[in-house]
Amino acid sequence: MSLKIALAQVNFHIGNFSKNKSKILESIEKGKKEKADLVVFPELAITGYPPRDFLEFEDFIRKSLLAVEEIAKSCKGISAIIGMPSINPNQKGKPLYNSAAFIHEGEIKNIIHKSLLPNYDVFDEYRYFEPNTVFEIIELKGKKIALTICEDIWDVEESQLYTVNPMDELMASDPDLMINIAASPFNYEQAERRENVLRRNTDKYHLPIFYVNHVGAQTELLFDGGSMVMNPSGKVIDTMKYFEEDFKVYKLKDALNDKRITEPSLLLKTGLIHDALIMGIKNYFQKLGFTKAIIGLSGGIDSAVTSVLAAKALGAENVYNVLLPSQYSSDHSVTDALQLVKNLKSPHDIISIKDAYKTLESNLNPFFKGKPFDVTEENLQARIRGVILMALSNKFGYILLNTSNKSETAVGYGTLYGDMNGGLSVLGDVYKTEVFELARFINDKQEVIPENIINKPPSAELRPEQKDSDSLPDYDVLDNILFLYIEKRLGPDEIIKQGFNADLVKSVLRLVNLNEYKRYQTPPILRVSDKAFGMGRRIPIVAKYLA
Amino acid sequence: MSLKIALAQVNFHIGNFSKNKSKILESIEKGKKEKADLVVFPELAITGYPPRDFLEFEDFIRKSLLAVEEIAKSCKGISAIIGMPSINPNQKGKPLYNSAAFIHEGEIKNIIHKSLLPNYDVFDEYRYFEPNTVFEIIELKGKKIALTICEDIWDVEESQLYTVNPMDELMASDPDLMINIAASPFNYEQAERRENVLRRNTDKYHLPIFYVNHVGAQTELLFDGGSMVMNPSGKVIDTMKYFEEDFKVYKLKDALNDKRITEPSLLLKTGLIHDALIMGIKNYFQKLGFTKAIIGLSGGIDSAVTSVLAAKALGAENVYNVLLPSQYSSDHSVTDALQLVKNLKSPHDIISIKDAYKTLESNLNPFFKGKPFDVTEENLQARIRGVILMALSNKFGYILLNTSNKSETAVGYGTLYGDMNGGLSVLGDVYKTEVFELARFINDKQEVIPENIINKPPSAELRPEQKDSDSLPDYDVLDNILFLYIEKRLGPDEIIKQGFNADLVKSVLRLVNLNEYKRYQTPPILRVSDKAFGMGRRIPIVAKYLA
Repeated sequence: MSLKIALAQVNFHIGNFSKNKSKILESIEKGKKEKADLVVFPELAITGYPPRDFLEFEDFIRKSLLAVEEIAKSCKGISAIIGMPSINPNQKGKPLYNSAAFIHEGEIKNIIHKSLLPNYDVFDEYRYFEPNTVFEIIELKGKKIALTICEDIWDVEESQLYTVNPMDELMASDPDLMINIAASPFNYEQAERRENVLRRNTDKYHLPIFYVNHVGAQTELLFDGGSMVMNPSGKVIDTMKYFEEDFKVYKLKDALNDKRITEPSLLLKTGLIHDALIMGIKNYFQKLGFTKAIIGLSGGIDSAVTSVLAAKALGAENVYNVLLPSQYSSDHSVTDALQLVKNLKSPHDIISIKDAYKTLESNLNPFFKGKPFDVTEENLQARIRGVILMALSNKFGYILLNTSNKSETAVGYGTLYGDMNGGLSVLGDVYKTEVFELARFINDKQEVIPENIINKPPSAELRPEQKDSDSLPDYDVLDNILFLYIEKRLGPDEIIKQGFNADLVKSVLRLVNLNEYKRYQTPPILRVSDKAFGMGRRIPIVAKYLA
Repeated sequence: MSLKIALAQVNFHIGNFSKNKSKILESIEKGKKEKADLVVFPELAITGYPPRDFLEFEDFIRKSLLAVEEIAKSCKGISAIIGMPSINPNQKGKPLYNSAAFIHEGEIKNIIHKSLLPNYDVFDEYRYFEPNTVFEIIELKGKKIALTICEDIWDVEESQLYTVNPMDELMASDPDLMINIAASPFNYEQAERRENVLRRNTDKYHLPIFYVNHVGAQTELLFDGGSMVMNPSGKVIDTMKYFEEDFKVYKLKDALNDKRITEPSLLLKTGLIHDALIMGIKNYFQKLGFTKAIIGLSGGIDSAVTSVLAAKALGAENVYNVLLPSQYSSDHSVTDALQLVKNLKSPHDIISIKDAYKTLESNLNPFFKGKPFDVTEENLQARIRGVILMALSNKFGYILLNTSNKSETAVGYGTLYGDMNGGLSVLGDVYKTEVFELARFINDKQEVIPENIINKPPSAELRPEQKDSDSLPDYDVLDNILFLYIEKRLGPDEIIKQGFNADLVKSVLRLVNLNEYKRYQTPPILRVSDKAFGMGRRIPIVAKYLA
């Protein structure tokens, strides 16, 4: 009989031990029913990933261990691998390991520790964990399993980030297969990268690999699932669902053959971003126990796309769209927004900000000492909108969705405590040019977003005849410069060398750095690129580099 | 002739290479004049500390190296030790080292790397740097110097965080003295801890130590200086200034004697916090190129203390106090605030929020569907104040100072986009009970803060007859529970065991965790404790632990 291995691609809730435990037990039951020998769960499954500084609480660790011990007791007639934190018993080193419990016959039989601890971008694992240095194989039904945890198999580039290679060490014990349990967050290139990394491992070690990933959103971090099985020659035997929970039992012998079990999904950038954002919104609300969103609908493309994504995530009836026109709003901004809510069948209201603007302007004027209209009055409009949206949010328990895109967040083209408000930023990691791509993707089969919203020139409509292009370069150019600076970490000279105007490059980079203070106070941003604003990009506010 | 060692305790500006370079050159010139053999600068002096993700930009590293090379050229007839990032030439490991350049005869003679990389609380060094594993002594005028970088000498607790000990390794070369260059941020217990750590080293190695630290604020991180020289028996020979730049030349032979050079400063908690916050405000403004602050003065103690500290940091004439009374404001809140600005001789204005509140309330009422007055209307008042303060800030280039304290920030007793606004939070790491201590400290010689502000019961004045104690436990109790949870990372059971009411503990911890979403959007908070909200405390928003 060939070994039967189940992969449980589960959406966990950080620190929700009773929920996580029951989800794990459910999968174990499923595994029993399908006669699996082993059910494999992702990295730090019991806590959810990333638990961050909760790991510094002994109480949190105690509860994690207790939950795994309870699971072990009811795990008979089947084995399981469960990611969990474990205590470092040594006098030296960090207090914890990032571990995998191998549960067999109702007991934790082995605890395997992670050796390579990612500590870049969104990862802080060396903050909590001691790297493993002892390498051990686990055995089940006569098969030797090289069990590794996420990053352990990722150090496959030419220039290596770590000085040890766990799989090299494990090969000394002559294993029959590799299992990797992961918490590998989504970006629009990650599924491809992940497959390549697994293939580098099968190419090197000539073993099949069973890979299980988290799925679901944890605030800004999106886990896309896509767990997979690859045969020893680097062929994908099966891929599990993207952006959804999944559970599947595989025979080891199938992973030694050459036959693909299901057809591969098409992984195109805009579609992936679309699905990832919807999952991000959905899980944010579900896990916080909210059901309804409020959005300030300007008639522009960013709020339109946000509203569509929210409707897909929460149901159109749960997305309350508020139009907040001022004296500077164009007629089309109202009619376009109304057409959108009509297409979506979402509820809406129109609340003019003219009165509030007039009142505040006249309260403030005596103190403005005759100074002319400037960005103050523009911000004032945005902030009144923010006040109204938050009042409705407070009164009815809506979460305000922020509609800022990555381009404007980068250069500070937005009002702090105004349009930068929100519990969650949906598009803060999506450049303006990509927002247009999303809009076209959404409209692919049917016009949901009125074409006029997509085609008109972007404007904040905070003063007469205003256009984004009055203060910003064309988004095509801007987004390219931003990408080279933010994603690629190139300096000004290197970017200029690629053919961009030198003054423009310097002024864009300067804006990005000067506006760090604004980004410090933005809502969490759903991360879809490999360098998003937020926890993965840590820049000092008070600094003078390129600023 | 005994070796003469100068310690240069400098306030650097992150990424401001021309400024940092000229400050270093000035100190080198001073050293030459005073016939020093060696001038020692702190950790990562050339970049300022912490440079954070700027370290990921090759351009930034290139500019750092260039600056140090230029300094080296003009460093003749004297030697220098300068903290800087350096490139890891190996194929494996992180791309950089956290290093110290030993400059001798106009050239970089040795580059010493840091071995122990702190990666906890506010520190992320393993994000950027490879730990050193090769141990090398530097030599000057026949003396062997064990040169280490900050954390390298800190792993002296019973249970060790690291598996190597750099000083143990360096002792093999039989050094004559220790030099440690540091970036050791302030908290109100840190100066004492630092002295104890140095003493553990002198006790163990029987060598004198020359220790140089950063001074000055880098956004939220405050460096208090307090560089020192300790003799081989653990006696402090001299301590440099706290919270100010300093430069001093010491003879090695003085560090082998037993005679204290200057009297020790009194390091009392409240005085330290007071001085640290003033430096924090001052440097935030200076380094960003601003001179004037705006503060919303409520008549309560938090805004009063903030206004006094700002006046001390920026000059009373540069602190614009705005009183924003509503229909719920008591008479005393206005008269107390007016008395305060009179005492301070700071400018002020009174802008009523009644009109704006009335207008917005009547705009919103049709959409509130008859729901009663609740926290929405309270928040509305706070947000109107925020709008007015930000409008004045925008019009005149003031930075708004946030006045929230740590207790209310912890439990979410504040309005997002309202009183939580600001470019910098002055008291966000100061518990309410400590704010009272600060007020009494400020009034020690003369009544600056009207006694009534200190003595009246705290109130947000957002509804009739409101008191903080309506919704919160007594601050004495609350602050104790918060301290045990936040600073000590105790769980609910452990806190309850200390004698607190179980339901109260659970509800406080729940509030802290539920309000993570608010804290995510607060301004940077000047850090005065060893666990402040912000970069040093990383908690997931979407989680269910104790919530």
